[in-house]
Amino acid sequence: GCSNNGGLSSRISSVWKFCNDDVNRVIFSFKVGLAVLLVSLLVLFRAPFELLGTNIIWSIITVAIMFEYTVGMTFNRGFNRALGSLLAGILAIAIIQLALCTGRIAEPILIGASIFLMGAITSFMKQWPTLVPYEYGFRVVLFTFCMIIASGYRMGNPIRTSMERLYSIAIGGFVAVLVNALIFPIWAGEQLHKELVNGFEAVADSLEECVGKYLEDEGSDGSEFSTAVIDEFPDEPAYKRCRNTLNTSSKLESLANSAKWEPPHGRFKHFFYPWSEYVKVGAVLRYCAYEVMALHGVLHSEIQAPHNLRITFKSEIREATSQAAELVRSLGKDINSMKRGLQTTLLKRVHSSTERLQCAVDNHSYLLTSAFEPLPDAAKKPSVPKISHALSNDLSSQLNDLNSNQAPAETTPPPCPLSQPPQETYHEMMRRQSRRLHSWPSREFDAFGEEGGGGNMELPPRMRALESTAALSLATFASLLIEFVARLDHLVESVDRLARLAEFKHEGL
Amino acid sequence: GCSNNGGLSSRISSVWKFCNDDVNRVIFSFKVGLAVLLVSLLVLFRAPFELLGTNIIWSIITVAIMFEYTVGMTFNRGFNRALGSLLAGILAIAIIQLALCTGRIAEPILIGASIFLMGAITSFMKQWPTLVPYEYGFRVVLFTFCMIIASGYRMGNPIRTSMERLYSIAIGGFVAVLVNALIFPIWAGEQLHKELVNGFEAVADSLEECVGKYLEDEGSDGSEFSTAVIDEFPDEPAYKRCRNTLNTSSKLESLANSAKWEPPHGRFKHFFYPWSEYVKVGAVLRYCAYEVMALHGVLHSEIQAPHNLRITFKSEIREATSQAAELVRSLGKDINSMKRGLQTTLLKRVHSSTERLQCAVDNHSYLLTSAFEPLPDAAKKPSVPKISHALSNDLSSQLNDLNSNQAPAETTPPPCPLSQPPQETYHEMMRRQSRRLHSWPSREFDAFGEEGGGGNMELPPRMRALESTAALSLATFASLLIEFVARLDHLVESVDRLARLAEFKHEGL
Repeated sequence: GCSNNGGLSSRISSVWKFCNDDVNRVIFSFKVGLAVLLVSLLVLFRAPFELLGTNIIWSIITVAIMFEYTVGMTFNRGFNRALGSLLAGILAIAIIQLALCTGRIAEPILIGASIFLMGAITSFMKQWPTLVPYEYGFRVVLFTFCMIIASGYRMGNPIRTSMERLYSIAIGGFVAVLVNALIFPIWAGEQLHKELVNGFEAVADSLEECVGKYLEDEGSDGSEFSTAVIDEFPDEPAYKRCRNTLNTSSKLESLANSAKWEPPHGRFKHFFYPWSEYVKVGAVLRYCAYEVMALHGVLHSEIQAPHNLRITFKSEIREATSQAAELVRSLGKDINSMKRGLQTTLLKRVHSSTERLQCAVDNHSYLLTSAFEPLPDAAKKPSVPKISHALSNDLSSQLNDLNSNQAPAETTPPPCPLSQPPQETYHEMMRRQSRRLHSWPSREFDAFGEEGGGGNMELPPRMRALESTAALSLATFASLLIEFVARLDHLVESVDRLARLAEFKHEGL
Repeated sequence: GCSNNGGLSSRISSVWKFCNDDVNRVIFSFKVGLAVLLVSLLVLFRAPFELLGTNIIWSIITVAIMFEYTVGMTFNRGFNRALGSLLAGILAIAIIQLALCTGRIAEPILIGASIFLMGAITSFMKQWPTLVPYEYGFRVVLFTFCMIIASGYRMGNPIRTSMERLYSIAIGGFVAVLVNALIFPIWAGEQLHKELVNGFEAVADSLEECVGKYLEDEGSDGSEFSTAVIDEFPDEPAYKRCRNTLNTSSKLESLANSAKWEPPHGRFKHFFYPWSEYVKVGAVLRYCAYEVMALHGVLHSEIQAPHNLRITFKSEIREATSQAAELVRSLGKDINSMKRGLQTTLLKRVHSSTERLQCAVDNHSYLLTSAFEPLPDAAKKPSVPKISHALSNDLSSQLNDLNSNQAPAETTPPPCPLSQPPQETYHEMMRRQSRRLHSWPSREFDAFGEEGGGGNMELPPRMRALESTAALSLATFASLLIEFVARLDHLVESVDRLARLAEFKHEGL
């Protein structure tokens, strides 16, 4: 029983869905069945059995152990197995010959010592960081060596035994590789390609989802965070995919390692295809995804900008987001279709809409700090009044400036009009907001929760601090979004490098 | 050759370092050597060989395949191997008996079909998400089944063959388990415990390192980001460890899975020890680490607050950071020593120093928006003048409030004096800063780089936007730090839950 869903029909349908999600799963299963059937036929027919004796069983073991999901991985395992068996065979035969030369008493001691040393040395070497990928090879060396030594010692004629065994292993390996590579091959390169493209989509979707929720989310009470499994947000499917992208590092690396073993195939037509570039692009993408995670952190943070403040920059944030997401998606699509589209137009658009967002944030920065409370000892800050003067001067001169300069140049993003006056219910919102803040500062805030029941301007100082920090959370959100866009430069660069090295076709040529 | 360092002595010293880093690596190697030696003795001596024949070789294979680093994983593999062999044996014998009842023509067809189906079904099942951990078991089932069928068909007396093989496997498994569990056992539970504690230290170190660099970093030009391998910052060792913590999710899970197989041992004295809680605490810790990554992102961002602005909040940021790091470290220490120290005092101190930071940010928010430029069409925003009135009212009432309330209550953090007047060189700094911003907005900024050579107030609008956004990056840094502290609540909670379930001792009792 693989699930406890109760109903048989629901179980069947979930198995059906599992198969439909990825037909390769079923293909792989049938391929394994076919491969073991083929090697078993060797045993079932008389001729090969008479030739190789009971050692023919090794071909079955080889298939069962070597047959991996992707072609590259099977090649890799085959290589490990072949080289490991060969090395172990040579070593074992050398030791046995040596043992035969020594006396009857020294012989078992020599053999015992060699087995012990072999076990210790292979186990030690396979822990060495650069050798970890060949872990399987070391296992093969160890047990092949032990078996040849032991059976050779007891059963005589070690060279014949080990040769028969090598033939059997070769037959098994041959069958496994042929079946794997010729019948509906599942290429590691293709998987790697898909995985990377999916990563791009996941990041784009998650960005849009997160920003969408940030701008829409009014009714929620932020209680999700307090559940035990804090990483789960059931209503955010793209978030989960984005988080999975963060953990693909080892998967991409192992796929790239496997892909290197594969001959040119399908769309990947030239030798020495730069699979390792995929891993690098994946790293840059992950770097972008960290920003999405941080945006998501602000979304689910306990300190929240009030909704009516958040939607002040709604159109700018929306625009920057949708263009950034579009850029990420079209980079993913370029990789997917192996085209080399220069995304400079899109990148420019993203940058200019991000600048509009920057500009909007700057224009409205008084909102972000509306609860600002200058230092009480004014002696230490002669600059405060100056600044406010400067500001009002600035304001009027600015107004003149802008009225005269209103001819909208392409490069200077125009200051963006407020979608609605957000000041009206601001303090009320903050008060309501403060109910949500019960867990921050969790141990002490309750004491203040009841006091501040008076007018708008009589909030206790703590509350005012929260208020301003809450407003700054919007600035944080915007900054993180801007930082995300800044990282897109590097993403475009790394994708371009991949396109160059992998010789993607120029679009429209 | 495992490294290309050239000199033999450097290679030896790196091997020596590798061993010294974790002595368990050497112990493990010698244990494997001992285990294979012990099973090989079975073959080298005459008695067991005569009893079980050539099948005794299976005990060697079993040891080589089953012997894993930790006790729990070895138990797990042993269970997989035992159950898999048993199931495969029963199925194979049943099929053989069935085949014997059918005619000579149907027999090979039945056997071939059963082998094919077995291959396909086990390969399919091992891909099912909940069965993935038992992948090895399915492999064992497949090859044991094939071997028994094939050798039984060809060599007769399948039951005797399979029983002998089962005995051999049992002997091998027994030796592997005994050697693994009795001689310098390496417990998965202990490893998991250590791994989690290391995670706490990595997060704390990385937080301090990142904040330290943010406050000190004056000379660097942010060029690190543009290198190809963007994830590497060689001068930040703790960052790397923190990033590794983000990828430990699967490691913690597999260790917890292994640990569940282990009997009570060492410090973990009671049955059903809550190993899965370790994974949950790890998840919350990772959640905190995401904020550290975001802080790190701000540190290496291309848009930077100028240094003299950053150090405005130096003492507050330092204090909040060092206390947060101390809290994280002492949580790690509590877990390490399995004590149940209530960290409420530390948590309170972290919260109050974070409030001081919040308060400082609020007090100085004019700095963060000093380049602010109000909207040109004042008709649409009747609220702006109102707000500035409200603010100045607020200011005076606030001054009165604060002067009367100046009796320093424990809970209200005092407004913090400026460490130095940051306004003097602010614009000059910004101008210098703008040199660093060449890559942002990378395609268009250069055009403006030369124009703005005039007075302080005559920066082009784009520049002013950058300036303000750069200042807001400090607000982002502070917000992220505050959000990190907010998440510490959950960390304390989850550690407390672990302490309760694992029955850690109360400190001082």
